[in-house]
Amino acid sequence: MKVKEIMDKEFIGVGPNMTIVDASIKMESHKKFTTPVLDNENTLIGWITSLDVTRGLRDNHKYVKEIMYPKEEIVHVHEDEPARMAVLAASQHKVVSIPVIDSNDKVVGVVRTFDIVKTLSKLYEIKVTKIFEAMVKELKGVSWDELMEASAIVTKRETGKRVTAKEYEQRIKNSTFGEAIWATGGLEKFFVGLIAIGELVIARKVAKARK
Amino acid sequence: MKVKEIMDKEFIGVGPNMTIVDASIKMESHKKFTTPVLDNENTLIGWITSLDVTRGLRDNHKYVKEIMYPKEEIVHVHEDEPARMAVLAASQHKVVSIPVIDSNDKVVGVVRTFDIVKTLSKLYEIKVTKIFEAMVKELKGVSWDELMEASAIVTKRETGKRVTAKEYEQRIKNSTFGEAIWATGGLEKFFVGLIAIGELVIARKVAKARK
Repeated sequence: MKVKEIMDKEFIGVGPNMTIVDASIKMESHKKFTTPVLDNENTLIGWITSLDVTRGLRDNHKYVKEIMYPKEEIVHVHEDEPARMAVLAASQHKVVSIPVIDSNDKVVGVVRTFDIVKTLSKLYEIKVTKIFEAMVKELKGVSWDELMEASAIVTKRETGKRVTAKEYEQRIKNSTFGEAIWATGGLEKFFVGLIAIGELVIARKVAKARK
Repeated sequence: MKVKEIMDKEFIGVGPNMTIVDASIKMESHKKFTTPVLDNENTLIGWITSLDVTRGLRDNHKYVKEIMYPKEEIVHVHEDEPARMAVLAASQHKVVSIPVIDSNDKVVGVVRTFDIVKTLSKLYEIKVTKIFEAMVKELKGVSWDELMEASAIVTKRETGKRVTAKEYEQRIKNSTFGEAIWATGGLEKFFVGLIAIGELVIARKVAKARK
């Protein structure tokens, strides 16, 4: 996934010679805490935040250019970079949004942290059932019921609690990858459980084939 | 993981009778785009954003209470809720931060979207090697080299490109779970690849045991 797939193309921009009052009204009506400062060709020349705007209003500054951060200080990403670069940049620099530029240095979008959260949480919110469905599809010759049975056995072995195949099926239908990771105590542990299930089901499949 | 484990305890607050100018200075000096409005006992009574502050300054309002959102309109989470509830709330409501309350309705922290991004991206940034190490540990009797060999074979089968076990090992050493998911085209596909590797290595282990 590239930066351009998660960026907001409906960004707003302000000019360096716009008054701070006008910029403030524009940002408020679009509910943007931050916005790029652009020249007439959409080239990135600065960046302002609503906090700079409050300072500008308090101190009676007049124009955007008096309160903006210069281009050199702005964290930005290229539209063709992997989306995870934007994730890392937002995380490292603790910013709420990052301008996205194309190869001509024009601003083509803005990545906002809540867009990132949305993208990341979509991954998290995948139903665990999906993963088991992929497993059955991949493990040709293993049925869904055999997989659920193996899962119930592994669960019993690892937690000490008896669970039927039907109960296990119900459990994964109602839980997401995110919940599973938090419930099992981390990504590696979640995998280990899956691998144990895979091992059991494959061992049974091989044994059946040899009969 | 609970909300209280990802929240920022160093949040600031303002009072309803604080002047907008003072609130503005406080928010700017702490670089906070949003802040809870609290009474003397830290009970949540409102919420202001820096955009509301710019409006307050422009329109010559005097006190925080004139520009704040009332409590009923504020998205908030409880400190003992699962952290993913804060993730979902931030994503759904497109907010940059969410106040966290305890059982007495006191504000005990604020969850900011970049804290969420940081937590989620930590998950993403786990090295793929870790997952393979967990696999070897779980699949007793399978060596690391056997696992790498099986992985190289599956990669050849799925991508058509020849890769040696050594090259495969190098590749997973340098890549993270996040990259792997984006590279393979999604969580399910990543799992399918892992399962295919597991299947091959287990089939080989079973065959060896029968010799």
